[in-house]
Amino acid sequence: MNPIAYNNKIPVFSHPAIYTDYYELIMAQGYFLAGRKDEDASFDYYFRNLPFKGGYVIFAGITDLLEILQDYKFNKDELIFLKNLGFHPDFLDYLADFRLHLDVYAAHEGEVVFPNTLTIRIEGSIIEAQIVETILLNIVNFESLIATKAARMVHVAEHRKILDFGLRRAQGLGGIQASKGAAIGGIHGTSNVYASFVHGTPVSGTMAHSWIQSFDSELAAFRKFTEYYPDTAVLLVDTYNTLKSGIPNTITVAKELEAQGHRLKGIRLDSGDLAYLSRKSREMLDEAGLEYIQIAVSNQLDEWVIQSLQNQKAPIDIYGVGTRLVTAQDSPALDGVYKLSSVHGVPKMKVSENKSKSTLPGIKKVHRYFDKKGMMYCDAILLENEKKVDRIYHPLYPEKNSSLEGLDYYPLLQLMMQDGKIVSALPSTETSAKYAREQLRKLYPEHKRFENPHIYKVGISQALMELRDSVIKNV
Amino acid sequence: MNPIAYNNKIPVFSHPAIYTDYYELIMAQGYFLAGRKDEDASFDYYFRNLPFKGGYVIFAGITDLLEILQDYKFNKDELIFLKNLGFHPDFLDYLADFRLHLDVYAAHEGEVVFPNTLTIRIEGSIIEAQIVETILLNIVNFESLIATKAARMVHVAEHRKILDFGLRRAQGLGGIQASKGAAIGGIHGTSNVYASFVHGTPVSGTMAHSWIQSFDSELAAFRKFTEYYPDTAVLLVDTYNTLKSGIPNTITVAKELEAQGHRLKGIRLDSGDLAYLSRKSREMLDEAGLEYIQIAVSNQLDEWVIQSLQNQKAPIDIYGVGTRLVTAQDSPALDGVYKLSSVHGVPKMKVSENKSKSTLPGIKKVHRYFDKKGMMYCDAILLENEKKVDRIYHPLYPEKNSSLEGLDYYPLLQLMMQDGKIVSALPSTETSAKYAREQLRKLYPEHKRFENPHIYKVGISQALMELRDSVIKNV
Repeated sequence: MNPIAYNNKIPVFSHPAIYTDYYELIMAQGYFLAGRKDEDASFDYYFRNLPFKGGYVIFAGITDLLEILQDYKFNKDELIFLKNLGFHPDFLDYLADFRLHLDVYAAHEGEVVFPNTLTIRIEGSIIEAQIVETILLNIVNFESLIATKAARMVHVAEHRKILDFGLRRAQGLGGIQASKGAAIGGIHGTSNVYASFVHGTPVSGTMAHSWIQSFDSELAAFRKFTEYYPDTAVLLVDTYNTLKSGIPNTITVAKELEAQGHRLKGIRLDSGDLAYLSRKSREMLDEAGLEYIQIAVSNQLDEWVIQSLQNQKAPIDIYGVGTRLVTAQDSPALDGVYKLSSVHGVPKMKVSENKSKSTLPGIKKVHRYFDKKGMMYCDAILLENEKKVDRIYHPLYPEKNSSLEGLDYYPLLQLMMQDGKIVSALPSTETSAKYAREQLRKLYPEHKRFENPHIYKVGISQALMELRDSVIKNV
Repeated sequence: MNPIAYNNKIPVFSHPAIYTDYYELIMAQGYFLAGRKDEDASFDYYFRNLPFKGGYVIFAGITDLLEILQDYKFNKDELIFLKNLGFHPDFLDYLADFRLHLDVYAAHEGEVVFPNTLTIRIEGSIIEAQIVETILLNIVNFESLIATKAARMVHVAEHRKILDFGLRRAQGLGGIQASKGAAIGGIHGTSNVYASFVHGTPVSGTMAHSWIQSFDSELAAFRKFTEYYPDTAVLLVDTYNTLKSGIPNTITVAKELEAQGHRLKGIRLDSGDLAYLSRKSREMLDEAGLEYIQIAVSNQLDEWVIQSLQNQKAPIDIYGVGTRLVTAQDSPALDGVYKLSSVHGVPKMKVSENKSKSTLPGIKKVHRYFDKKGMMYCDAILLENEKKVDRIYHPLYPEKNSSLEGLDYYPLLQLMMQDGKIVSALPSTETSAKYAREQLRKLYPEHKRFENPHIYKVGISQALMELRDSVIKNV
């Protein structure tokens, strides 16, 4: 039952401008009152640490973000509320007509990205560029996190299908972004009807235990269900006893369906030892000549459990994943940050006592290099006015450096919004998922393994290094 | 800056009916086609495991849920979408006029609750009672989770203030429910302007590092900020060097403000060793006669870090908590479930091979008992038609039982929705927070401690035990 998506719009959410940290508004008013509202500024988005002790992140959320930014405004009720909070009348007048005129450069949705590489650069007036910080972080951090979690599961499941069943355990309306991120990360279907409606992800799901229990017997429940869904039913077989009741009743019903010209689609195991039960179920179904019936499993799955089941060669066709996907249970937040890099042409940086937490000054771009085999080799961060570079340096240990001569590259960041208008065709969720899949093929397996993945190389240009060191000297 | 809340409505969210698992609709159509749509059913909501290895949960989300249920319908676009998915025309006609006529019994928002005690009971037609499962679990699981996390932080911080700064790391639009849950759990303010707008939570927040960096010097940044916010400014002091620059500049500015008749509100430490830096900062401020300046801290705080800072007697007035609050980082999902208990007057239960995962059959209620000191003693689960009970039994080990004679109790579940209409005045977020605070006072400290908290007693009546055993025998 693959849907025709009704549309591909972002979730209806009427209050993005006040879905923000209060200090964004406090600072905005400060800049306004100080007469600095038209001063140019530039900010970078990047993250410092990889989630799940993994080797990469799938960049997601930019499409939703751009749609929010294009439509960003304060409505009348919100302005009354801000007035009650004590904001200045002149600032409120300014907010009443507030629209964004930002330029946004960003990586493609679905791009494979790495720590400390900026993946979004925003330029505009200091008020506008600052005020979008919270919504940017909120949307991009989370969708990227879930896209990454999903990609790990899809990777380890090889050609088996992964379905998102997590909505009931998602963090409230975060289930909207969770299902989208999961789709970009490559899952094959979702239980979340809303996600299908908005993003076109195929929907999936059949029955709960309550369906079975509501009938006098499991067999009656199976029969009634397959009467209405003879070719799509996936029967839940563990309500009473999987091997003594669920599978025998499945075989009975499947044979009855065959007599009517139908083929039962599958069964679902939701408890017990999934390796053992899938093997036993497969044997019983095969002995009955029902090799075509697929086996789906669910129950607290994540990439580690899937890896274990795969290693055991459990005869599973479909993995239904829930809580651990949609909440990214073992790393439930990506630590992406949004840092000022330039004001009015003056490069800015945060000098931290912990050097690895210092930021990089100036307006910057990123070139992604590929080796002779066409595989991702490294990211080079350089100043916007540099054409290209031949050598990159480790940001902390410049004695570690690499030549880039003769290697192909592409610019990672593309202009997606200009003067507040989206100027790049926004990809559908499916397109972003396809892009992620293709890019992951260009990433060496050692970056994708779960245990101590190889660290991808990210370096800076000599000019950027010199700029940084001179800014530090001045501080 | 405490706001006057503009209203107290749930977030604008136009698609609750399809923000659901696909199988709810598949089962609903099954019941419809089977002519069972008007059959009565009853479902229970409860959770099995306590999050954070804690001793209790703060029940939250019921207010938002009831508002969603009262307004539950399918719109035209959604019906077109469902038609494209292949749903039956007769069922789609039924959905076009679909409204809920459910009766909902639930605990008070902010109630202190425990594993296996049902906190919501829903009665109605089997389609209606089933179809709300996903949205119920999505909202109630998450708000309860965050309310609980917040309550733990508030508990350990004693009389210090806790502020929610988590929106940027919240799981997408889940930040809406996170801030509400946090407020019910007792936090004193939030950075989330939207949460303040909708729920009336006081807003809080002043400046980011970018404000400081956008000026030529830290002193200039502090001066300009306090020019506009002379009495509410909390200066971020770690941009360059907390003790060598941030605090000296704070003292300069605070003295200048004093000369103008103002008092600087506070400073915020956002990096480094917070115990050491808060102590040193306090000393420097006190030596300058600035005892009134408050010290706020932030940076990866949770209840354990706060406990450590409290134990070290760090002179901190305000804790700003983010990621670890709004994502409930160490237990990012509550495992609440929604289980069928009765169909058409016939008690139903799921008999699991793991007895502790079996459900309790029949329409049930809960009495909460208090000891002679007025402290919470136990919860008794009994059948709806029992008036009261004198003894409760451990659900798995009936030889463990307790007399309730002479003890006071109240019914935990109250009728909140009747025939689809809210019939109980919905509490404001502030009222729910107050209720939680009062109830927590009636919970013995041994249930609140972090390490191996004492397990609260939940038992079942003899009649319920006998019903369960007879249902098991029949299966």
